[in-house]
Formats: sequence, structure tokens, C-alpha cells
Amino acid sequence: MARRDDEKPPAQPSWVRAAGGTHDQILEENWLFRLRKERFQSRHSGKAHDYYVIDLADAVHVVALTPDGEVLLVRQFRAGSGRDSLEIPGGLVDPGEDPCTAGARELLEETGYAGESPELLGTLWSNPSLLTSRISTIVIRNARLVAAPDPDQHEELTIERAAAGEIPRMIREGRIDHALVVAGLLWWLGTQSPGA
Amino acid sequence: MARRDDEKPPAQPSWVRAAGGTHDQILEENWLFRLRKERFQSRHSGKAHDYYVIDLADAVHVVALTPDGEVLLVRQFRAGSGRDSLEIPGGLVDPGEDPCTAGARELLEETGYAGESPELLGTLWSNPSLLTSRISTIVIRNARLVAAPDPDQHEELTIERAAAGEIPRMIREGRIDHALVVAGLLWWLGTQSPGA
Repeated sequence: MARRDDEKPPAQPSWVRAAGGTHDQILEENWLFRLRKERFQSRHSGKAHDYYVIDLADAVHVVALTPDGEVLLVRQFRAGSGRDSLEIPGGLVDPGEDPCTAGARELLEETGYAGESPELLGTLWSNPSLLTSRISTIVIRNARLVAAPDPDQHEELTIERAAAGEIPRMIREGRIDHALVVAGLLWWLGTQSPGA
Repeated sequence: MARRDDEKPPAQPSWVRAAGGTHDQILEENWLFRLRKERFQSRHSGKAHDYYVIDLADAVHVVALTPDGEVLLVRQFRAGSGRDSLEIPGGLVDPGEDPCTAGARELLEETGYAGESPELLGTLWSNPSLLTSRISTIVIRNARLVAAPDPDQHEELTIERAAAGEIPRMIREGRIDHALVVAGLLWWLGTQSPGA
């Protein structure tokens, strides 16, 4: 029953939109996202199922490294957790915008820092069971304070810094506990280790 | 402006629910989640802002290791991405259920595998800007096939296995690209390396 992963995975999704999308329903639409109920049908069994899908813009976040090897962090309120969250800077990617451009823009807006040309580390689906959004992690080296921060009107951020070597402990101790931020930071740390 | 992270962070959230929640609105409620608009007010500036919050149950996923050092993976359709996604087994935690119990239950239902007592590796906020949900990563060693899989009615899963040492490459190459799964797997891999 189980097959080894070195076999090639199927290229086609196993479920396809049922009846050309005629069963779909928009349940909510606002400046941030669109919530839809979409009916899919299994190509294997023929079964149909209604899935909730939230159309949300792609996002980007930035591992910004200062010349002395520190990582820039921002602390801000998050309504889902009802808590302030310690994260790497980031935000939504505008339609058609390159994630690297968006990341450098968000870094400058949120912190006033800018650095070398951004490098794209990787792109992941944020939560593909529910969200259409992907998140890219980029790295910006030699980040220095070049301007006053200019965050969005309702963003109130505290800027912090941490030595890169402290990041794994901060994750283990729950001081950094936003899963998407943890994915980006651990991915970046994996590129730093001698064996990677 | 920037402060060092070794200062103690504020214990209170910087925003609190405005007017006792009287401005809140329920926009959608279904078997899976409740979508609300919630008004919060900054304790610093006094500004108010309406946030979208999705009440979604906590989740758990399982790094299940076979006796020969392979990690169990499941491939399944995800409507947000419109693709099949290669993930570690997991699912939602029932109200009041322990994440370790839920993880062992989901592993058995999805794959038919069971193993040693689950160990909790860590718990993160899945996406605290929008979701109330947290996700726990647990490890189950010596996982063996003990029963026929019994997935939910609309779940159609393919079970796969990968050598633990292959996981970093599979992430880098985009074969595992669900951010929450990547966070859990990289966290687990960090506990495996000699220096961790």
C-alpha cells in the first residue's frame, strides 16, 4: 500500500472542480480576502465534497541581517492569537509584484532598514487546506537603518534584534511561535550549518 | 529605537477588545470555523481597528518514524492550493483532547500505523494574524502498520515513506511545501543534529 517517495508523484491533482464551478458560493468578500465554498470531485472515486477556500494574497517575510550578525525582529499585536507576536518583518505581496521587491519594501516600511539585494530562499503554501496564499522567505544582508519606519496606519510595531545564534533557543522556548516565521527562520538556519 | 531581545517582552497584549466586544460581528459560521470581525483598540495610541478572526480548532501533526528510520508521509488534495500536497499525517484536535492523543488517533486513522507513546515537540500559532488555531508537532517512534487505514469519508490519502535524511532535500526541492509541515519537520530535524 505504501509506496516509496522516490517514485514520481502524479502531476495532476486528484480532485478537480465539480460541474465547472457552478456549485461555488462566495460567502464573504472584503479588502483582505474572499471566502468561497468550492465543490470538488475526486478523479479516483467520483465523490464530491465542498471545501472552504480563502483567497488571500501571497505574503513575504525577510531574514534581515545587520552587519554585526543580528536578525531584525518586529513585535506586533495579532488578533488571531490575541497576543503580541515576535516575527521577522514582512507583509502581503501586491498583485504582480516580485516577492523580493515586496520584501525589501516591507522591511523598509516596517523598520526603516535596507540592505543588499534580496535573495529568495524558498516559497511555501501558508496553509493549503484553506488558504490560496503562499509565503516566500527572503534574505537581506547588511541591513542598516536608512530611514524612519513608515508602517501602515493600524500597525504598531516594536523593532528588536537578536543574535542569529540565539534564534533556535528563542523558538524552543516559545518566544518566537508564529509557525510561518519559524518555518522561514529554520529554513534559513539550515542553509547556515556546515553540512547544508 | 530598536531594543535588544534579551529585555523582557511586555506580558499584556498591546491591543485589547474595544467596547467589550459590542462591535463584533459574526460573518460566517459552519462545521469547520467561525469567521468574525472583531474590533480592537491599541493601549498605546487609543486607535481602533477591525480585525478578521477565524476561530478554527487546534491541529496536530505527527513525525511518525518506522523502525528502519523512515518518516511516514501522506499525499492528499488540498483545495487552497488546488494541488495534492505531501505532508506528515495529522488533523484537528477535538475540544479538550490532548494533542498527543489526537496525533496518535489521526496517525492510526489516516495510515493504520501506531507506535510508542507520543512525545510533544512543540506548539506554534498556525497564522496568528488571522487564525485562532495552534498546531502541535509530536513524534511517534517505532511506528508499524497495525490496522487498515480508516480516513474520514472525504479524505483520499496515499501513504508514502521517506528516509529521514532525505527530508531537507525534499523541502529544498519543493516536494514538501506546506509551511506548517515544513516548520514541524525542520523543528524535529533540529533536535536530531549533534549540536542541538
